[in-house]
Amino acid sequence: MTGSAFEQALAAIATAVNEELAKLMPMVEGPEGRVVEAMRYAALDGGKRFRAFLVCGGADVLAMPRTQSLRVAAAVEMVHAYSLVHDDLPAMDNDDLRRGRPTVHRKFDEATAILAGDALLTRAFEVVADPATHPHADIRCSLVSEMARAAGAAGMVGGQMIDLRAAALGLDAQGLERLQALKTGCLIAFSAAAGAILAGNPTAQAKLAAFGADLGLAFQVGDDILDVEGSAADVGKATHKDEAAGKATFVSRLGLEGARNLANQLVSRAKNHLDGLGTGAELLKAAAEFAVNRRS
Amino acid sequence: MTGSAFEQALAAIATAVNEELAKLMPMVEGPEGRVVEAMRYAALDGGKRFRAFLVCGGADVLAMPRTQSLRVAAAVEMVHAYSLVHDDLPAMDNDDLRRGRPTVHRKFDEATAILAGDALLTRAFEVVADPATHPHADIRCSLVSEMARAAGAAGMVGGQMIDLRAAALGLDAQGLERLQALKTGCLIAFSAAAGAILAGNPTAQAKLAAFGADLGLAFQVGDDILDVEGSAADVGKATHKDEAAGKATFVSRLGLEGARNLANQLVSRAKNHLDGLGTGAELLKAAAEFAVNRRS
Repeated sequence: MTGSAFEQALAAIATAVNEELAKLMPMVEGPEGRVVEAMRYAALDGGKRFRAFLVCGGADVLAMPRTQSLRVAAAVEMVHAYSLVHDDLPAMDNDDLRRGRPTVHRKFDEATAILAGDALLTRAFEVVADPATHPHADIRCSLVSEMARAAGAAGMVGGQMIDLRAAALGLDAQGLERLQALKTGCLIAFSAAAGAILAGNPTAQAKLAAFGADLGLAFQVGDDILDVEGSAADVGKATHKDEAAGKATFVSRLGLEGARNLANQLVSRAKNHLDGLGTGAELLKAAAEFAVNRRS
Repeated sequence: MTGSAFEQALAAIATAVNEELAKLMPMVEGPEGRVVEAMRYAALDGGKRFRAFLVCGGADVLAMPRTQSLRVAAAVEMVHAYSLVHDDLPAMDNDDLRRGRPTVHRKFDEATAILAGDALLTRAFEVVADPATHPHADIRCSLVSEMARAAGAAGMVGGQMIDLRAAALGLDAQGLERLQALKTGCLIAFSAAAGAILAGNPTAQAKLAAFGADLGLAFQVGDDILDVEGSAADVGKATHKDEAAGKATFVSRLGLEGARNLANQLVSRAKNHLDGLGTGAELLKAAAEFAVNRRS
């Protein structure tokens, strides 16, 4: 598979999930409409939609209908968007810029940003639990459970907590790996496995989740490399921030060469997990390559 | 039913839901444990557990097992606790004191408070979706959907958004009623109706939800009256705050007498919704009386 075939698929899914998100968060009349505006601002525009791609790509491997996978993809992107909105807050990373635009608390205000994040997270579960996502309630409940596990204190939020304490903890490469496995890996693993949950296929679910976990880590190592090598114009946010903040990254812990080696190992391990899933998995393999070879 | 019989039932459910919450949020080793500590600090201690009482009381009316209703009650209390943690943040109400103790961001820090709220909300959905809550997945999905609807932008978060803008909007009594219906009414209505969702009984669900909506509003009118009449020692938080902040309340809009009349009307309407649910509903009627006659 060529890189450009992958990039076309990524772009097509990004367009489709943007439309799905817009439909799932219609504008609202009345004074509470402001929070919906902020939700839409946070979730509708920009982003590679890499998690949505993984949901749809994984579901395609198992021939699950796009109507189903797009709803789950939209829910995952809501969770991802909420985490960015809260992460950007002054009390957290204090970022003014996200994807080249003012962050939600800069565009609106801090209170609205807190509420918009809360409502995005809530809406994500509502979307997944809705019968439109899958005719079988047990499948929808599994999606809710797994998404909650990936997003909660034993997953993404746990990773964010460690991240806040990372400087004080003085993490080595292993500690950093665990931080990232929780902070970004769990939701990416859920994204990759969601199609197999839709299909009710536990064997494929385990393979795709393992693929996603390695891929997620590779993606983060790629992020750290980009922070050193990328330009702000390409990346769409401030680069060289980690270094300036004295933050532990895979590059600071392993060196640039060591980080590149780790990323390559992870990508090849990720691809191995896909063995036995047929030629439909080629696109996911290309996604793994992208995780470490992207420019933004 | 005597007031003290109701108070005993309330206290018994509070004890039971506290134990359930402690079990559902076990301490965690590792650096992410701090967020779990903050979740426990926010959710385990204090509070009347009025929402938990409504869940269990409503479920009792329909003879649903306490093992099921306590899990839903715990989930609702997690959602309630998360909303208080975020509401207390400096960018929102900026409160230092909650139930006579430092608020989460004062006890821990702001970032930890944001994350603890996020994780409580996430855990609530995880708990409800778990097969331990009810053997039928369609029931669990309904609970997830209804809880999300009650908590999200069309419910609690929408109400919080209006609340933030209330001063600028210059709300009249009707606008205030809608604010409170969203901010507190939706989750209280869900709490009251949850037992009927567990029972798969749509008729009882509609009655109990209508009861809960009126009760929720009565409760809020009661809060406004308490803010004027109560002492900080009884209420466990600063009183006369609304007045000092020039905030629109039912008392400021309707006068103390008008607010008392509204509360009484709501309570009697709330109780009428319970007609036809048998003698098991007596305890819920006592809860409605409590909403407007409490001292804290």
